[in-house]
Amino acid sequence: MTDELIEALLAGEHRALARTITKIEDRAPGYRELVSRLHEHTGDADVIGVTGSPGAGKSTLVDKLAEAYREQGLTVGVIAIDPSSPFTGGAVLGDRIRMASNTGDMDVFFRSMSARGSLGGLSTATTDAVKALDAFGKDKVIIETVGAGQNEVDIVRTADTVAVLVPPGSGDDVQMLKAGILEIADLFVVNKADLDGADRTVHELREMIEGRRNEVAVATGHHGAVETEPDGTDTDTDGEHSWTPPIVETVAKTGEGVGELCSVLEDHAEYLTASGQLEAKARSRYAAEIRTLLREDASDLLAAEVDRRGGIEAFVDRVMDRETDPYAVSDEILAPIEECVRERRDT
Amino acid sequence: MTDELIEALLAGEHRALARTITKIEDRAPGYRELVSRLHEHTGDADVIGVTGSPGAGKSTLVDKLAEAYREQGLTVGVIAIDPSSPFTGGAVLGDRIRMASNTGDMDVFFRSMSARGSLGGLSTATTDAVKALDAFGKDKVIIETVGAGQNEVDIVRTADTVAVLVPPGSGDDVQMLKAGILEIADLFVVNKADLDGADRTVHELREMIEGRRNEVAVATGHHGAVETEPDGTDTDTDGEHSWTPPIVETVAKTGEGVGELCSVLEDHAEYLTASGQLEAKARSRYAAEIRTLLREDASDLLAAEVDRRGGIEAFVDRVMDRETDPYAVSDEILAPIEECVRERRDT
Repeated sequence: MTDELIEALLAGEHRALARTITKIEDRAPGYRELVSRLHEHTGDADVIGVTGSPGAGKSTLVDKLAEAYREQGLTVGVIAIDPSSPFTGGAVLGDRIRMASNTGDMDVFFRSMSARGSLGGLSTATTDAVKALDAFGKDKVIIETVGAGQNEVDIVRTADTVAVLVPPGSGDDVQMLKAGILEIADLFVVNKADLDGADRTVHELREMIEGRRNEVAVATGHHGAVETEPDGTDTDTDGEHSWTPPIVETVAKTGEGVGELCSVLEDHAEYLTASGQLEAKARSRYAAEIRTLLREDASDLLAAEVDRRGGIEAFVDRVMDRETDPYAVSDEILAPIEECVRERRDT
Repeated sequence: MTDELIEALLAGEHRALARTITKIEDRAPGYRELVSRLHEHTGDADVIGVTGSPGAGKSTLVDKLAEAYREQGLTVGVIAIDPSSPFTGGAVLGDRIRMASNTGDMDVFFRSMSARGSLGGLSTATTDAVKALDAFGKDKVIIETVGAGQNEVDIVRTADTVAVLVPPGSGDDVQMLKAGILEIADLFVVNKADLDGADRTVHELREMIEGRRNEVAVATGHHGAVETEPDGTDTDTDGEHSWTPPIVETVAKTGEGVGELCSVLEDHAEYLTASGQLEAKARSRYAAEIRTLLREDASDLLAAEVDRRGGIEAFVDRVMDRETDPYAVSDEILAPIEECVRERRDT
């Protein structure tokens, strides 16, 4: 089963890709082996995260971006994350596939994923789905999230490049952005740039970015002049690579500015490679993945142990009766496991 | 060492209590055994959480509340959580001890705790410190947090009763409260009630509480008339116990309204006992404690295993080279442990 599915996916069958992502999303039997075996085929896709508040025009912009890539002859996969709804509507998905299909092929592969189980699980599932798209051979993988909560921020930050969409005239929103979003943005997109207030929003974003650069410069002791190149890369006085988030203005509906967005994304991809950031990001992402999986897997193992010993409520009974306490319970469950590990190590 | 410390703490020596909490905060050697052994002496204190945005007047109100309890002949312990600063100023602590000491004794025990390590750790440390105060024999334990983030909410919700402070004239703040705070509030305090805008704030809070009650009624199918008693308890048509968060107006500086606050807190304590909520809360708190400790302890065990096998970076190297992948790494580390557990179980 897994052999055939992998073979079909690697051969470029979109149905196999869709089935693989469904297995990943459902945590269906065999999904671990599947993802595990796809890994060796990954590492070539550019992964782009797009986030922003609802109504910023993310879907339309992502559709246009995908179209632009297709016109460049590149293949594209899009994963739209919707943590708020337990199930994303098939109709929405269908519409978007149709919209994107005016390029006449299926090389823009859209998929929405939702928080069926826990949001933590969604983060792992997204990472795994990106792997499936990467192994399939998509040149560009776009992760689209509603940037509302910490979890969505955690998901989108697993991308190589993160674009944050800001609707125009949202002075307050720029203030809100400061908390968490600024740190993860590699570039800002002021979409609906034809609306009133767009100039002010660009201005406020620019001030915020400048303010932050100066803070960083002071913090790192870089007081030297920093020149910003038109493409967003900086040439520090000491010649190090650095990156200041550029601001791109778009009108997603008409496609205005999408070409510039493509080229800024390209600049960032080049910066990532040249600066060594691409490798550094991949490394820290894998370390995080290993730690997350270890934690999740160990948690399953421990839950099984707790159940085997009569379940959590039985332990709570004893804690309530002051026969034992939470620390002693944890020791009681883990001590035999630690002993096992120690014995095995010593032999 | 531990024997003497516990003996001194149980004998009512405040210095022993302070040393115990320091050990807990520092995760000093022996702190586990200490907390473990204190558990059997706990279960008698009323634990009250007080939260609210900075500037709402929490510290002053908590000081007055502690004073009021002292005048009733009750003993009080206060833990002030400051997650933002790595170290809380000794001066601030000193001031507050002085302020509270006009009752002429040390039975109002103040202690601030900060996020030295991780915020997650602070949550466990707070739970443990509450146990120390409870075992010591404090009648009332107050946990005071700045209700800014999810972590502070998680900390304060471990209390039996949660009071949320709202500054007057903060229409926007009432809106903001909806996200997360409303669910945990057992009562609201509009402090600085002598200021302009207090009436409006009370009005908005009342509307919000009513709106929520109706939502809950619809969701649970309770369409019958719900009468609110003056003390905040409801008498449902089907006779079940329920509780609608009352709103108390105070002027902490002058002490106005503090007496009413005391009596509402007393009402809630009685409601908790009568409804069985007190026991239910304790049970779910212990279950959560066990799960958290198991997770933390297992995580230490796994980190040690990863280090013994060459460290996380060595695994990342192999993942980067596509020799292995994160799922396989997790299996590789956990499989021998699972095998151990299985063998032990079968013999």
